[in-house]
Formats: sequence, C-alpha cells, structure tokens
Amino acid sequence: YNALPPSLHAEWSIKALQKGKHVLCEKPFAMHAEDAKAMVTAAESSGRLLIEGYHYRFHPVFAEVQRLVASGELGTIHTVRSNFSVRIAETPGSLRHNVPLGGGALMDLGCYPLHWLRTLFGSSPEILWADAICPKPQLDSTFELRLQFPNGPLCYVGCSMSEHLNRQHDAYLCLEGDKAQLEVFNLVAPHQGHHLRLTKYGETHDYQMNGDSTYDHQLAHVVACIKGETKPLTGGRDAIDQMQLIDDAYKAAGLLPRGLCK
Amino acid sequence: YNALPPSLHAEWSIKALQKGKHVLCEKPFAMHAEDAKAMVTAAESSGRLLIEGYHYRFHPVFAEVQRLVASGELGTIHTVRSNFSVRIAETPGSLRHNVPLGGGALMDLGCYPLHWLRTLFGSSPEILWADAICPKPQLDSTFELRLQFPNGPLCYVGCSMSEHLNRQHDAYLCLEGDKAQLEVFNLVAPHQGHHLRLTKYGETHDYQMNGDSTYDHQLAHVVACIKGETKPLTGGRDAIDQMQLIDDAYKAAGLLPRGLCK
Repeated sequence: YNALPPSLHAEWSIKALQKGKHVLCEKPFAMHAEDAKAMVTAAESSGRLLIEGYHYRFHPVFAEVQRLVASGELGTIHTVRSNFSVRIAETPGSLRHNVPLGGGALMDLGCYPLHWLRTLFGSSPEILWADAICPKPQLDSTFELRLQFPNGPLCYVGCSMSEHLNRQHDAYLCLEGDKAQLEVFNLVAPHQGHHLRLTKYGETHDYQMNGDSTYDHQLAHVVACIKGETKPLTGGRDAIDQMQLIDDAYKAAGLLPRGLCK
Repeated sequence: YNALPPSLHAEWSIKALQKGKHVLCEKPFAMHAEDAKAMVTAAESSGRLLIEGYHYRFHPVFAEVQRLVASGELGTIHTVRSNFSVRIAETPGSLRHNVPLGGGALMDLGCYPLHWLRTLFGSSPEILWADAICPKPQLDSTFELRLQFPNGPLCYVGCSMSEHLNRQHDAYLCLEGDKAQLEVFNLVAPHQGHHLRLTKYGETHDYQMNGDSTYDHQLAHVVACIKGETKPLTGGRDAIDQMQLIDDAYKAAGLLPRGLCK
C-alpha cells in the first residue's frame, strides 16, 4: 500500500512492483500522466497488480449510481453538478499545501468528482473551461471546471480546501436527467453517513445503501483481484487517463501539471 | 423600498429621497463607494432616512454574537472563518450574472460576511489577499479573501454562487478565541433554521435564539427609526465604508469595482 505523498508514488510503486509486490496506490496516482504511464508499464512488466485507491468506487452506493444511470431510469442525463470540498488548514508540513509534493485542491479533492464522472460517462471529456484560486503560486485552494462528454452531459465540477470553509465535508453529485434527477450526498465516505435522493415527477425518494466502510470494500476487491477472482476496477488505462485529465485541467486553468512546477 | 438591481440603487434612492421619502435600500448599497457617498449626501440634504437592507443585522442571533464578542467570553479572537455560498444558476436575465447590473458573488453573497466582520470588528480591515474565479470577464462566481483588522483577528472570507454547488445555503461564521470558539450556522436567514455552537474547554453547547424573520426585525427597526425611537444601525458612513471595502476587494483580486466595467 503506497500511502506516500503523490510525488513519491511513481518511484516507490515501481520499486515495489519490481520486487514482485502487488501495489495498491493512493490517489492521485502520480504527479502527471507520464509518471502514470511508467507505473502502469512497470506493472505490466512485472506481472503484478497495480490498483489505484479510489475507495469510493468499491462501495454499494456507487454501484447503485451506476445501476440507475445504466437502467435509463433517469432518462437522458443532460447536466451533472459535482463538488468535493473540505477545509484543510494550512499547517507546517501540510502535504496538501506543498506543490512539489503534489499538493493542491484538484489533486487531493477534485480528483474524486473527476473520477466519478469519468467512470460514469467514459474517459475523455472535453474541458470547456477551468479556473482556480491560488493563494500561493501554482497552489490551487479552489478549482472549478466545466466539462462536456461526447454525446454526454455538461458537467460542473468544483472543489475547495479553503480556510473559510467550515469543517463539514461536502461530497455531492447531482445527475439531472430528462426523466428524473439523482442526488448523492457523501459519495466519498458513504460509511460516515450518506443518502441518495431520487426525484421523479416531482416526488422525492430518499434512501441509503447498506455497506461497510469504503476501505473494507476496497480491501475485499484487492484481495479478490490477487486471488484472480476478478479484474481491477481502477488502475491501468483508467489511472493514466485520470492523470491526463488532471494535467489538462491544470493547463486549462493556466497552471502547471504537478511535477512540472518547482 | 428600493429592490432594484444594484446599478439602479443610486439613481432611484436619490430620486425618492428628493421627493421626501425615507428609503430602505437593498444590499449591496451601490455599484461603488462614490455612488454610496452621493446617496448618503442626498439623504443628509433631504433630512430623510436612508437605511441599507442588511436584514441579518436586526435579528436576535446577531445581537447574541455581538454580546459574546463584547463580553470577553471568547477571549482574544485571533482567527475568523466566514463563508456564504448558495448556488445561483445562470438563467437568461439572471441579475447575479450580469456585471453591468452589479452582478457577481462578492456583490450578492460575499457582502454579508464582509458586513458581519466590519460590524463586529470595526470598519477598516486591511486586505491581505484576494482572488476570484471568473467564468466570464469581470464576473466572479467564487471569491476568497484574507483580511486583517488592526489589533484584531485574521479573517478568512469566502463566497460562491457556482453551478457545481448543491442547493443548500452555507452561511457560516466561526470566531476562534483563546478562551472559546463560537460558530454560527445560517447567520443570513436564521429564521429558516440556525444554530449557535459555543465550544469552551472542549465542551460544546448548541443553542438557538428566538426571533421572527430577519425581514420582520428589519421592518420593525425601520419603523422605529422613522418614529424617531432609535437611530439606523445601517446606512450612512457604514454603507460608504462597506462599498469601499467591496471596491478594494475587487481591485485586490485584479478586477474592476462594479460600475467601472462595461
């Protein structure tokens, strides 16, 4: 399990793979897409597993979101609103405020809504617009994006770790379809409390999904992959495309992809 | 009651005052400080009242915040976190997304935390840092500030009307003192649900203040002012200083004060 800062993900994941270890690597996967490619290549060469730790992905809540999208119950989804904001105070040694270590709100928080959207709607959205607030050079404390998936929805994405926020997490996804609307409150850590809200013909239905902690589901998935019972849901091409989107988002906001700024 | 867009506040408030009417003018008071001065001068010449509609100001919740600050119960307040964010969709004719009419998140939302802070700690903070996200030229959808009051606290201020937010209001004030911490949830519209949270020696006390709607309290205040029973709590020098701070915040973020952009 590579839980080091993003700047050390490539080096130590590759070293572990070369030593014959399977690797579960924390998100964000790498500093940029080139690093991600090198990591995935190392995994292929070693014949070992390299899985990205998007733990939300393995929880029954996300499976429910996928089910509703695939079932057509929402109709054509035209607009998506997504946000992940958590106040992260700047303290001495704070990883998230350290650009050379891979800091920034998009790296730490915005990567989640980007991954939700890529997983639900395919891997290559167009970035229509992006902008960030940077209290220090290259350090995004708040980031906003508009994305368009080919033949898919217009997506609004936001994230913030700003000091003015209160301490409550806001991890929110809203899928607006022409038949119904689905809102998910706390898609990142649903085991700490969550609900889904389905609104159809003006009627609102709130419900929850039973599940363990996202980390338990993730661990079960990793074990099943190692036993050869299933294939990894994250990592590989998905991890490279995810880092490419983060790189492109930084560029679209006039910033540098992490790893290119000193 | 002048509820026109900010771009029409000066003209129509002055006309009404000249016709001998008392005026309750919506916030933000004007497009910039120069307009605000002209309005206050017109009120003085006419001998009529010109009151700015910061309705939160007249509710018992704010009186309670003032009481706690003045009592010394919080000790020396060193840090303040404040935020007002509400998703405001961009629709055709949407006032808040129209810069010539006085749009922008700081004008419509951020003005509240700025006014809370000015009222609690005095009228002339230094702007240490400011930045905004602008989906269109000069149009701030998200705005963040750091302010320092002379011999007073460091204040973090944020506001956002971004499309990615969910529909819940977040109107939050947190005063961190060396003896205790006070958090206020929903200082803008406490009649729609609010609570105060006082944390002292690790113990948390949640409570509420009885009151009517902020607009009822505001109306009662206006009536009392007209009857000569009390003096206006908003307007005059306060309204000019408030617009000056908003002007300076736009400049500090590299934007133009409203009314100077076409």
